[in-house]
Amino acid sequence: MCEIIDDLQLKGLKIIQKKDGFKFGTDAVLLSDFAKLIKAENILDLCTGSGIVPLLLSAKTNAKNIVGLEIQKDYAQMAQRSVKMNELSERVKIINGDLKNSLDFFKKRSFDLITCNPPYMRTNSAVLNELDEKIIARHEVKCTLEDIILVSSSLISLTGHLVMVHRPSRLCDIIYLMRKYDIEPKRIRFVHNTACDAPVLVLVDGLYKGKSDVKILPPLVMYNTDGSETEEFKKIYGKI
Amino acid sequence: MCEIIDDLQLKGLKIIQKKDGFKFGTDAVLLSDFAKLIKAENILDLCTGSGIVPLLLSAKTNAKNIVGLEIQKDYAQMAQRSVKMNELSERVKIINGDLKNSLDFFKKRSFDLITCNPPYMRTNSAVLNELDEKIIARHEVKCTLEDIILVSSSLISLTGHLVMVHRPSRLCDIIYLMRKYDIEPKRIRFVHNTACDAPVLVLVDGLYKGKSDVKILPPLVMYNTDGSETEEFKKIYGKI
Repeated sequence: MCEIIDDLQLKGLKIIQKKDGFKFGTDAVLLSDFAKLIKAENILDLCTGSGIVPLLLSAKTNAKNIVGLEIQKDYAQMAQRSVKMNELSERVKIINGDLKNSLDFFKKRSFDLITCNPPYMRTNSAVLNELDEKIIARHEVKCTLEDIILVSSSLISLTGHLVMVHRPSRLCDIIYLMRKYDIEPKRIRFVHNTACDAPVLVLVDGLYKGKSDVKILPPLVMYNTDGSETEEFKKIYGKI
Repeated sequence: MCEIIDDLQLKGLKIIQKKDGFKFGTDAVLLSDFAKLIKAENILDLCTGSGIVPLLLSAKTNAKNIVGLEIQKDYAQMAQRSVKMNELSERVKIINGDLKNSLDFFKKRSFDLITCNPPYMRTNSAVLNELDEKIIARHEVKCTLEDIILVSSSLISLTGHLVMVHRPSRLCDIIYLMRKYDIEPKRIRFVHNTACDAPVLVLVDGLYKGKSDVKILPPLVMYNTDGSETEEFKKIYGKI
């Protein structure tokens, strides 16, 4: 499959992506920016795909050890090549494996920060339904979100954080499941196209066994009403 | 205690309030406006205080039967007098009682809509602590929010809604407890002073045994950056 190399516009970082495959989006960039505030030496990125979040976090934080876990072998190999291309092999590792078997690869409580930009199941389901309805039905039943949160609850340290980005429609699932597995949402930020719009994304920062008291941050607005990018959005993308 | 009569600026409604007691605020007005969208014949307002929410809902909806429940006798009597003063006795009833004993007063599943503007425990606790720390400690442990949601889950009809206003810091408690008691949040709206600020209130609309899929509405912004009221806020207050 044809590949392209994109410039991440951040400390000279580059990333290899499939030309016709799944490419990283705004969600991965916003997730990295939201997660960088957590002080962490050991970071794990679940569903890492092309490795975009580990690459960005290597530039945005001083973490010593950043691991990306990806279930699809070809994406994991591509992410691995991006790591080498950026000469980050000492700090960034990519592992090809299923997150449900995470305890085969990692020790319990070994990460200060876990990040995840999961598949947005409900959004994709309509498209995927056209290929194989049964597979999709099984996907929804498997509740990948629960797998992610359950696994994270075992892997984060006693003062560790799980930071996720998702569609706002899944907010209640995220909050309910985090609390079910001893992770308490402490910071939530909604991402809006313009200040008048309903949010299109939500960023959630959960603390292992944190106290119940969440901070809803000011809206993260990407565009002004004239369609130009807001100052904050430009800063996140390193444009100013 | 000295009382005053305030004009609600809505269909000639007036309300009796204690001059130096707890007076209704923006939260009650926003709650009524958010709740009026639910089609309901039978409405129950828990923690009704001076009866502000039943009075506003009598003007904003066509509900046949609106009941306010208040634990403090003097507030309940005052609310009752407001109902009479507004000649609403046929549609609005005030009951003095403890919501934890609600099934003594009401039949199960008898309300299409339950509204509640509960005491914001954590905010008040610092003040109340100065009077009696032990009482407050017990209040927090009793988890009034859980009582409200538990009771509502028994009283709302099979297609009924529980609509609440609260501090955003309690969002996770509300979502977790609603789901625990079979009420699924379907609409959430955050209320902001200005579009750039973190929210100061949150409105939550939960549906009995609803499917998991919440709509986060556009922010409700009360003030423009020059300090003037936004058009939407003026409309809610009936000023335009």
